[in-house]
Amino acid sequence: MTIEQQTDAAWVMARCDELATHSSRPDGIERVYLSHEHRHVNALAAEWMAEADLDTWQDAAANQCGRRGEPHLPALLLGSHLDTVPGAGRYDGILGVLVAIVVARRLRHTELPFALEVVAFGDEEGTRFGTTLLGSRALAGTWQPEWAELTDASGLTLREAMSDFGLDVDRVGEAARAPGSLVGYLEAHIEQGPLLEEADRALGVVTSIAGARRLFVSITGEARHCATPYDRRRDALLGASAAITAIERIARAARSFATVGRIRVEPDAVNVVPGFAEFSLDLRDATDEARDATLDAIRSELELICATRGLTLELRETHAAPAVHCAPALRDAVGRGIRSTADGAPMELFSVAGHDAMAVAALTDVAMLFVRCEDGISHHRDEAVTEADVAVAIDALEMAVLAVADAHRG
Amino acid sequence: MTIEQQTDAAWVMARCDELATHSSRPDGIERVYLSHEHRHVNALAAEWMAEADLDTWQDAAANQCGRRGEPHLPALLLGSHLDTVPGAGRYDGILGVLVAIVVARRLRHTELPFALEVVAFGDEEGTRFGTTLLGSRALAGTWQPEWAELTDASGLTLREAMSDFGLDVDRVGEAARAPGSLVGYLEAHIEQGPLLEEADRALGVVTSIAGARRLFVSITGEARHCATPYDRRRDALLGASAAITAIERIARAARSFATVGRIRVEPDAVNVVPGFAEFSLDLRDATDEARDATLDAIRSELELICATRGLTLELRETHAAPAVHCAPALRDAVGRGIRSTADGAPMELFSVAGHDAMAVAALTDVAMLFVRCEDGISHHRDEAVTEADVAVAIDALEMAVLAVADAHRG
Repeated sequence: MTIEQQTDAAWVMARCDELATHSSRPDGIERVYLSHEHRHVNALAAEWMAEADLDTWQDAAANQCGRRGEPHLPALLLGSHLDTVPGAGRYDGILGVLVAIVVARRLRHTELPFALEVVAFGDEEGTRFGTTLLGSRALAGTWQPEWAELTDASGLTLREAMSDFGLDVDRVGEAARAPGSLVGYLEAHIEQGPLLEEADRALGVVTSIAGARRLFVSITGEARHCATPYDRRRDALLGASAAITAIERIARAARSFATVGRIRVEPDAVNVVPGFAEFSLDLRDATDEARDATLDAIRSELELICATRGLTLELRETHAAPAVHCAPALRDAVGRGIRSTADGAPMELFSVAGHDAMAVAALTDVAMLFVRCEDGISHHRDEAVTEADVAVAIDALEMAVLAVADAHRG
Repeated sequence: MTIEQQTDAAWVMARCDELATHSSRPDGIERVYLSHEHRHVNALAAEWMAEADLDTWQDAAANQCGRRGEPHLPALLLGSHLDTVPGAGRYDGILGVLVAIVVARRLRHTELPFALEVVAFGDEEGTRFGTTLLGSRALAGTWQPEWAELTDASGLTLREAMSDFGLDVDRVGEAARAPGSLVGYLEAHIEQGPLLEEADRALGVVTSIAGARRLFVSITGEARHCATPYDRRRDALLGASAAITAIERIARAARSFATVGRIRVEPDAVNVVPGFAEFSLDLRDATDEARDATLDAIRSELELICATRGLTLELRETHAAPAVHCAPALRDAVGRGIRSTADGAPMELFSVAGHDAMAVAALTDVAMLFVRCEDGISHHRDEAVTEADVAVAIDALEMAVLAVADAHRG
């Protein structure tokens, strides 16, 4: 490890610690879109971007941007996000922004055939307004005007929150980049899974980002007094419990990722057999085809369970996104970047979690570099990366940018 | 059916309809302890008791009472309750009060070796303050002083609610009857189960009232991002789902009544594997021994499920009541009452639901007469009894009183 590597990685680790102190709550990290904390971390990011010889601005969607290069040149965009879930760790999104800034700083004297830009997206998690990727969708030009009326937990609309932040939601379209103005997008991010750790690798090349389907499964039976014999019960929670265990069995066998994260019953009384149960289902796989096949299998099994128990089943889809496949040329560049470190045969893996790159893919080619995180833990204060891994991530992303430049010149 | 039977049963049906109009909400029946509606139905019950030649008073716990007989005589008490759950039917409790009043009216010229009393308890369901049997426990002398500080959904204490009702919670002890002042307690009640209907019987003799144990089962795993592979998950909701299906299987085989009516998870987010799940368990059986054996079997199975899945299990008991066995002499009297109708071999059954008789049993012998209800439905607006069944219930309870008198004289 050279002195410069040590210095850069240590700098990134220290900045991650510093950003973690900008939280809306004292007992953990929470930083949502258009909050005071968002303003503070944008200002810090702008300062660090300026130190990397980037011209900085905050765009119309409150994304913090930095650029170096002639105005007429298309740009290679590096970045990730600075917002967090409640009770977050200090690396999800943040690490990618800081690694991008460090790479821009390292390359400040290197001539490139494109402009270099860094972006710190303001909303990826969607925690505040319930819709994810607001920052990256604004940049990609896929922002929907009706989002202006989305409300947060306090009832404030996105329109009002933007106004309080000093922005005008009706001008958010100005954040959209023109098609052709970008060469591509590279994002470094913690894996949020344990595969790199299990394979003893610091880094990995992302092949695709799984598209999630999200559904609410409703099961209706009959609310009955707890004195009702079993043969007379149509217990919606028993149906839901059988369904949830079946979902695990089916998804596990298919190697899909199914998560039932929410559940509620009615009337929710200790001495009444539940007449209604509703639970969420988040389903992901490497390809849309594999994911949809798993959902078909789950649906058939749930229909059987409900028919057997005299229950009514309803599936209501609330979200569906297609998988995003990383562009071969950019994937190769990331692979070359990793090979320039100690790893001669980079591991390829798909991302189960969603990322800004999914939104940016609507505008330009994307690729991602995954960084090993401890025990695969994310969205948790125990989220952890090592300084040594961050050092090689910086090297790899720098080399990936140079590989893109080579290909661009060629 | 004689004219008098027709008249009495029709009167009871009409009074059930009339009481159903005294509701705190327009879209169904709800009548809780110490409410305006409680005051109104007590006044009506007092009027009807007076018509049955009973001297009436409202006791210190807002139970409406009526009595006929020399002051020095111990009393045979007949009754049930006038409060309801939300969205109630019109017979649970109410039918027993009205049948008791009609029986007192029929016997107004009959000399008895004891005083005859009717009581309309003010709280059996426990809907308002979360603790059941407040009325009957006051009469039985088992009221706990700390209940004064129980609060309702609006934050009002029981002390304040009593004061608003014109009563003093510190004088509720005056509602307690002296040991030895009662001959016994007889309660008519709808079955709230389908067994009489299935056996084609109008009436049944209750052998015992099941004592419920109520627990909260907590399962702790680890909240993880939905990108976590199955082998790394410790999903608390999957543990709970396996537990709930196991509880059904075990209780069904043991012929116990187990109900899981409430469930919640944390963090309750669509894209996070639940790290914590908690559900309620209400467990009942004809005897405490059978019930406790079922709980032991459930506990063993849940420990196994949680151990297999790397989850932590905790069972916290919030309520445990012993089964109440009806007194043989009073059971015989109820049986004689039923035999005086068309039913020569009365069906015996235990009550899965709790009743005022459970509380009164702390003070004196109790027995119960069950009346068939349609499809076993209760705590629901579809709760239904037939006028013909009510007619034989009146006959049977009247004859049971006379049987108690015979035994008392003998």
